[in-house]
Amino acid sequence: MTRRISARALAPMLPPPSGRGPAYRELADHLRLLVLDGRVPLGVALPGERELAAALGLSRTTVSGAYRLLREDGCLTGRQGARSTTALPGRSGTSTPGPEAPDGVLDLAYAALPAAPQAVHAAYAAALQDLPAHLPSHGYSPAGVGVLREAVAETYTARGLPTTAEQILVTSGAQHALHLVLRLVTAAGDRVVVDHPSYPHALDAVREARCRPVPVALGSTGWDVEGFRAALRQTAPTMAYVIPDFHNPTGRCMTGQERAAIVRVARESRTTLVVDETLVDLHLDGPPPPPAAVHHPDVISIGSTSKSYWAGLRIGWVRAAPGTVARLAAARPSVDMGSPIVEQLATAALLRDPDVLPARREQLRVQRTALVALLGEHLPGWRFEVPPGGLSLWAELPEPVGSALAALAPRHGLRLAAGPRFGVDGTFERFLRLPFTLPVADLERAVSGLARADAALGSAPLDPVGPATSAQLA
Amino acid sequence: MTRRISARALAPMLPPPSGRGPAYRELADHLRLLVLDGRVPLGVALPGERELAAALGLSRTTVSGAYRLLREDGCLTGRQGARSTTALPGRSGTSTPGPEAPDGVLDLAYAALPAAPQAVHAAYAAALQDLPAHLPSHGYSPAGVGVLREAVAETYTARGLPTTAEQILVTSGAQHALHLVLRLVTAAGDRVVVDHPSYPHALDAVREARCRPVPVALGSTGWDVEGFRAALRQTAPTMAYVIPDFHNPTGRCMTGQERAAIVRVARESRTTLVVDETLVDLHLDGPPPPPAAVHHPDVISIGSTSKSYWAGLRIGWVRAAPGTVARLAAARPSVDMGSPIVEQLATAALLRDPDVLPARREQLRVQRTALVALLGEHLPGWRFEVPPGGLSLWAELPEPVGSALAALAPRHGLRLAAGPRFGVDGTFERFLRLPFTLPVADLERAVSGLARADAALGSAPLDPVGPATSAQLA
Repeated sequence: MTRRISARALAPMLPPPSGRGPAYRELADHLRLLVLDGRVPLGVALPGERELAAALGLSRTTVSGAYRLLREDGCLTGRQGARSTTALPGRSGTSTPGPEAPDGVLDLAYAALPAAPQAVHAAYAAALQDLPAHLPSHGYSPAGVGVLREAVAETYTARGLPTTAEQILVTSGAQHALHLVLRLVTAAGDRVVVDHPSYPHALDAVREARCRPVPVALGSTGWDVEGFRAALRQTAPTMAYVIPDFHNPTGRCMTGQERAAIVRVARESRTTLVVDETLVDLHLDGPPPPPAAVHHPDVISIGSTSKSYWAGLRIGWVRAAPGTVARLAAARPSVDMGSPIVEQLATAALLRDPDVLPARREQLRVQRTALVALLGEHLPGWRFEVPPGGLSLWAELPEPVGSALAALAPRHGLRLAAGPRFGVDGTFERFLRLPFTLPVADLERAVSGLARADAALGSAPLDPVGPATSAQLA
Repeated sequence: MTRRISARALAPMLPPPSGRGPAYRELADHLRLLVLDGRVPLGVALPGERELAAALGLSRTTVSGAYRLLREDGCLTGRQGARSTTALPGRSGTSTPGPEAPDGVLDLAYAALPAAPQAVHAAYAAALQDLPAHLPSHGYSPAGVGVLREAVAETYTARGLPTTAEQILVTSGAQHALHLVLRLVTAAGDRVVVDHPSYPHALDAVREARCRPVPVALGSTGWDVEGFRAALRQTAPTMAYVIPDFHNPTGRCMTGQERAAIVRVARESRTTLVVDETLVDLHLDGPPPPPAAVHHPDVISIGSTSKSYWAGLRIGWVRAAPGTVARLAAARPSVDMGSPIVEQLATAALLRDPDVLPARREQLRVQRTALVALLGEHLPGWRFEVPPGGLSLWAELPEPVGSALAALAPRHGLRLAAGPRFGVDGTFERFLRLPFTLPVADLERAVSGLARADAALGSAPLDPVGPATSAQLA
């Protein structure tokens, strides 16, 4: 029952040897990162040494040496010569990939803020007041409780898209919303057009639905509407998934004109357009244009509280035509039985709290300014747009060393999300996503660590570094 | 993009005309129930009239008349002659299938208790005290927060199965746990052995994973270990899913000997055994034997708070080998990003409250006794075992009229879960699942409604009755 990954599938994910340090070490580092990043799943058998050596044009000794190192750190199980399967390093290979970075390590893999503590606590306290009315019922709510569906609908109406509660399905976060929508809209083997780069777990969800992601590169500024149109015409995808509001990872915001054009193009090719608005509230330089769904009622919107309020709240939603919401609710029980009541009541209270978001935005503005200044000072060769909102900037490095930096980073007190996590094919080695979600003092430490790692890269060989990053980011 | 159901797939779900009343009405009633029950999904095109008539051996006029009736109630959209797609009846066909029965209707489709109000409220209040410690973190917890993983592990240890926190993955309910496990263990096209009857949403989850459920009939008492062994040998399934503790719907409890034997048989055929213990705490005649996983560490157990405490809490878990838990946590982000923090803290408090479960069990004992007596008095021809625990009994009717009774029931103030929902192939028409989760006074009204519906069945033709039941049950 062990799954395998073929040398043909693995080889394109591995960059050629840089010539710095022994090739077997470099190969081991790259393989380790693929496992730690979740791009090669756990429990999968790697290709035989001879087979991988042939696919990579390397000597068998190199591959054999790399596998040996990986066995030593616990990234591979099984004895030499036998089929080796991927594992997580750690005592007995059994530790769970935690979302928490080790003590003292600054976590730049997550783009998420801590909770607004008073507001979140107060929202739960309000929820507890409302709870007794719900306790006499069995508590199942496949579409969500009315008060939250109404509160979410009001947020759309306020953004210029009149919405009623029956157009809202409450989910356990935006990722769960995407999973439910993919199951409704697509079938195995379908194509799904995605922004390129895009949010890694969204790409995972597309693959997990057994669909093929079709990447459309973002333009040099904004979105490449013509590229989008061409992709729809040439590949006849069932669905397209875009992040118009402070796109993850680039932070870009789609103009109103681009929104209208992309909706029109999707309509013309009968492609279901799914718009992820998880970051919409985090506009730092003024509000974004109205939602793409103002341009057509069949557009499906996805939202979440994880970035605006707190990821410890697991609430998201789908906004769609009422019939689509009804079909999602009816199909949902094969995945889960609904979202928790208290969580929904607390979210309704938070969405109606006028004070949370302005404070979050102000905090993010300060941190964005600091990060931009720090990078200019310590890493003047790195290029980036200053994003008009969201949680991160997308830094282009002078060389394609994103994964190498991520592998080195823990030695400099950092956990990084390298560019290839945001691509469908191992590209974006020139990029890192740098969140400005940490306090300014931590950003100072982080950039100084980045600069040290960058300097070390030129000289140091990439020797084994232990668990460099988590399989999960956000 | 509209999906279709073929006449060949639909015909086996439809019983032959009973000869009572016009055949087109009866066909419409049966089709409506398939839609309302979710056995034919929403938004699916039904076969053409000619094609379905041929498959059923009925006249085209009969099928045409049935489709017309369904169009009139809103169960089918589209004009006559064109492909008609299934819909939910209701104004404009857009209402969401609610978990709530209409006012005054007693809901026997759900087997779930209301919350133990003081205890649940107190648990959330305790969670709110613990919350501030978590607010400074980003709040993602793919495997669950430590305090809950420990509390769940303690419940297994107390039941005779020593367990550590790293063997527990927290999920959003047992159904979500099963969904995650299916994704890890199975691939499209695999076979999954299931008890027959079994929990409907578990069967949905197996199908949704694109696996084929292989039903093994329960024995006349207990489990048919030989039948189980034969099914494993003959069909080489990847996974087997059983509900040994107060099986849903029959309420049966697997003996220790049967547990050992089924674990052994699964091991011999290298089938992953998944054991759903959602109802384990609701033992009414003494505790069940230790968990099946005492017999082998590779057994995967699934649990939930929905039945023991409240379904408005959406917390469940997987207990498995630490490596399996790590793989589940690493794969989870393509489905969702974890379970909510407050919900997890509240659940940890509830699991450690010694008073909740004894009170729940006492309430259920009283209601079970009342239901058994009421059925003996009003429906003496219905047969059932008195289950040693759980939430329902599985009543065998003198005739195969389960769906017909469910269709009639709303006229008598009831919503019912008919036997075929618990089967993989439309069988169990002789059965109804009758929960004893309602207060005694409601059980009295329910059984009297059942008796009236049963009496009406002999005389009345089955004319259209509107939304008879929900697509969701529990």
